[in-house]
Amino acid sequence: MSTENQNTSFQLTKELTQEVIAYIENQNDVALQELLQEFHYADIAEILDEVDLEQAIYVIKLLDSETTSEILMEVDEDVREKILKQLSAKEIAEEIGELDTDDAADILAELSEERQEQVISQIEDLEHKAEIQELLAYDEDTAGGLMAKELVRVYEDWTVEQCITEIRTQAEDVKRVHSIYVVNNQDQLIGRLSLKDLVTAKSKQKITEIYISNVDSVYVNEDSEDVAKVMAKYDLEAIPVIDHNKILLGRITIDDIVDVIREEADKDYQMAAGISQDVEADDSILKLTKARLPWLLIGMFGGLGAASIIEQFNGSMGDFIVLLSFVPLIQATAGNVGVQSSAIMVQGLANGTIDGNILNQLFKEFLLGLVNGVAIACIALLVTHFVFGTPYIVSITIGIALISVIVMAALIGTFIPIFLDKRGIDPAVATGPFITTSNDVFGILIYFLIAKCILGF
Amino acid sequence: MSTENQNTSFQLTKELTQEVIAYIENQNDVALQELLQEFHYADIAEILDEVDLEQAIYVIKLLDSETTSEILMEVDEDVREKILKQLSAKEIAEEIGELDTDDAADILAELSEERQEQVISQIEDLEHKAEIQELLAYDEDTAGGLMAKELVRVYEDWTVEQCITEIRTQAEDVKRVHSIYVVNNQDQLIGRLSLKDLVTAKSKQKITEIYISNVDSVYVNEDSEDVAKVMAKYDLEAIPVIDHNKILLGRITIDDIVDVIREEADKDYQMAAGISQDVEADDSILKLTKARLPWLLIGMFGGLGAASIIEQFNGSMGDFIVLLSFVPLIQATAGNVGVQSSAIMVQGLANGTIDGNILNQLFKEFLLGLVNGVAIACIALLVTHFVFGTPYIVSITIGIALISVIVMAALIGTFIPIFLDKRGIDPAVATGPFITTSNDVFGILIYFLIAKCILGF
Repeated sequence: MSTENQNTSFQLTKELTQEVIAYIENQNDVALQELLQEFHYADIAEILDEVDLEQAIYVIKLLDSETTSEILMEVDEDVREKILKQLSAKEIAEEIGELDTDDAADILAELSEERQEQVISQIEDLEHKAEIQELLAYDEDTAGGLMAKELVRVYEDWTVEQCITEIRTQAEDVKRVHSIYVVNNQDQLIGRLSLKDLVTAKSKQKITEIYISNVDSVYVNEDSEDVAKVMAKYDLEAIPVIDHNKILLGRITIDDIVDVIREEADKDYQMAAGISQDVEADDSILKLTKARLPWLLIGMFGGLGAASIIEQFNGSMGDFIVLLSFVPLIQATAGNVGVQSSAIMVQGLANGTIDGNILNQLFKEFLLGLVNGVAIACIALLVTHFVFGTPYIVSITIGIALISVIVMAALIGTFIPIFLDKRGIDPAVATGPFITTSNDVFGILIYFLIAKCILGF
Repeated sequence: MSTENQNTSFQLTKELTQEVIAYIENQNDVALQELLQEFHYADIAEILDEVDLEQAIYVIKLLDSETTSEILMEVDEDVREKILKQLSAKEIAEEIGELDTDDAADILAELSEERQEQVISQIEDLEHKAEIQELLAYDEDTAGGLMAKELVRVYEDWTVEQCITEIRTQAEDVKRVHSIYVVNNQDQLIGRLSLKDLVTAKSKQKITEIYISNVDSVYVNEDSEDVAKVMAKYDLEAIPVIDHNKILLGRITIDDIVDVIREEADKDYQMAAGISQDVEADDSILKLTKARLPWLLIGMFGGLGAASIIEQFNGSMGDFIVLLSFVPLIQATAGNVGVQSSAIMVQGLANGTIDGNILNQLFKEFLLGLVNGVAIACIALLVTHFVFGTPYIVSITIGIALISVIVMAALIGTFIPIFLDKRGIDPAVATGPFITTSNDVFGILIYFLIAKCILGF
């Protein structure tokens, strides 16, 4: 037992990074290897995210490919891209040779097509190569794009004894076994065996007698988010992937699903915040600008639209110029309500808690808008009249406008996500600046129209 | 093999719900049991979420407690609350007796203290009872609150043969084995055995020879979000929980972590959208109003604040009354930038991609704000002057104000989450209406101050 009991105490400190850099600079390979040996590859990846590119490549070339292939999977995508550029096709092929087929295909997918071919031609293990090529053909957002070819399969006519011998061989390639999939002679999935059942079964028994025919599975072209939903709903840790003839093609494990859930949540969150690409706080200013500026432009044109509406009414307003002071109130309220409604819809559509009846949902939001609207309007009416001294008729106008704007914003915020979802577009694009901007403009328009009707300017 | 190969094809249809309701109303228990037998408990839970309370209780009382206990775990929290109210303490105790300790404790935690005691006193299995009581003592947001007592433990001085016999007994209580934890005679965690290694080891070998001492673990009082991070980072499917003396207390499985990740993401998303409680689209209007109105009130007072700022400048503005038309532009831009910056910070703090150096981060956002600001300002300047015919000096004022407001909003949006995080407050509260409102008000103030300086009114 050489390694220490490893607790979750890994903390990336400046001292540690400095130590690694010092060893690299002094080319003290022995000390470096000894130091890094203590760490999990995910921890080494965190260190490499912090050091310079040349230093990272030095470490990658120093360690054995079994470790570095896993490190490569864990480093930031842009760091990986840079490292891969510095490696030869043969070196990449060696790294990929160590990885499971799903990870290997993911890394290959990040390369240009030309380079992909160069690397693939260098993979020595022909079976591994064929499997990776098969996986590369699937869309990355489907079950096929998530699955690995590594799994343990047994035939229904085997005995438990035969099974165990076979599993010993097959399991060498499979990091975590989870389930043993039972297939018939046409390689169609017909059931599963739990490892636990196998351990506790008698060795002469036939698989047909002990297998469980009740097995969840997903089709290879199923959307990865749907796979995540199924696995979360049924608390599955692995799920087999089949084609439409029920042929067993691969399996998906829960760790990949955790990544799908996280990425999906991050994406929705960023969309709601008006960030259009997957960016992180430590990305470059250029990349961050690309992700942020488009939404700011939408907001800006919305603001200019609002300005031209105000210009339209400005001339005729006369004594009621005070109405302009309350534009921010109308705008903020419309924006907030719209974001609330759309966020609830987007989540509801994602979780399947919305039954799809648009009219019911709109009616409910109408009532909700009315309740919130009346509450907000009453307070605003009292504050504007008694604190600001706004004339009564103007305060009433503001109140009525607030109710109308809140109801309208709630309806728009509800309708647009449902509409997009029905058309097969991710409803999350309707959140954030998009909904805020359209509600701003509509809200201000409604405000002045109502004011014009009531005050008669 | 009685049951059918179960694909992911379960779809909750109106017809199915109607069929279930019809059987309940005709008290056709045999047909109902036969129908529901085909479905996974998570599917039955979906059906029960749709029917009336009495009907749901009818089904719960009809099926055996092994199934209904799992169904209870899966139904919506408010449905469960209502069902539990209609069951006697003894009936609840029976349901709980079927559940794993972690689920049992979760259900108990939803009851009032008085009722908790009544139910606990009715649990027959004394060991199960003691374990549940232990779990109830931990904070629900910690490793202790997530863990289950069910796990497979072996002592280091056992042989593989002894182990397998023991595991057969222990595994009866453990749904998924994952890992076998190795402890010494003081019950301190010293390592693990993978089930795969055990299957492939020779029966006479001692555990000391084959166990892996390298085992991740978490402390019982560790925050559940941190547990999720560790498990995701190291791709773990189960992790043992220890106390500060390394005594093995329980284990956490990945399915519970998937729930933590989802809930956390939902919570952050809702906070960013200005929804203060965990609500869903199908909740009551009262519950939705409670979650939404507080943020609308914050926005409203922000709007009134903006109104009073405008009032301050309104009187002296004279010819420059046109400035008021561009208030929505300033406000929308300030709000959008603030939300973008804060969202990136909140995510960065959650993922650990921010190194904590506030000054570096603020300087970066300053530069980013400047780049975005100049871009937006130039376009706005051209559009207002050439399309709207705004006087040149007013367009320049708007441009300068936009740059200043964008830089300010970026800095506020960056600073507040970092500040809250340092003080131990969840930075996610700083997103959404909170940041929008403060940026709205500051933005408008800055706009008029700059206008006053340049235009000299």
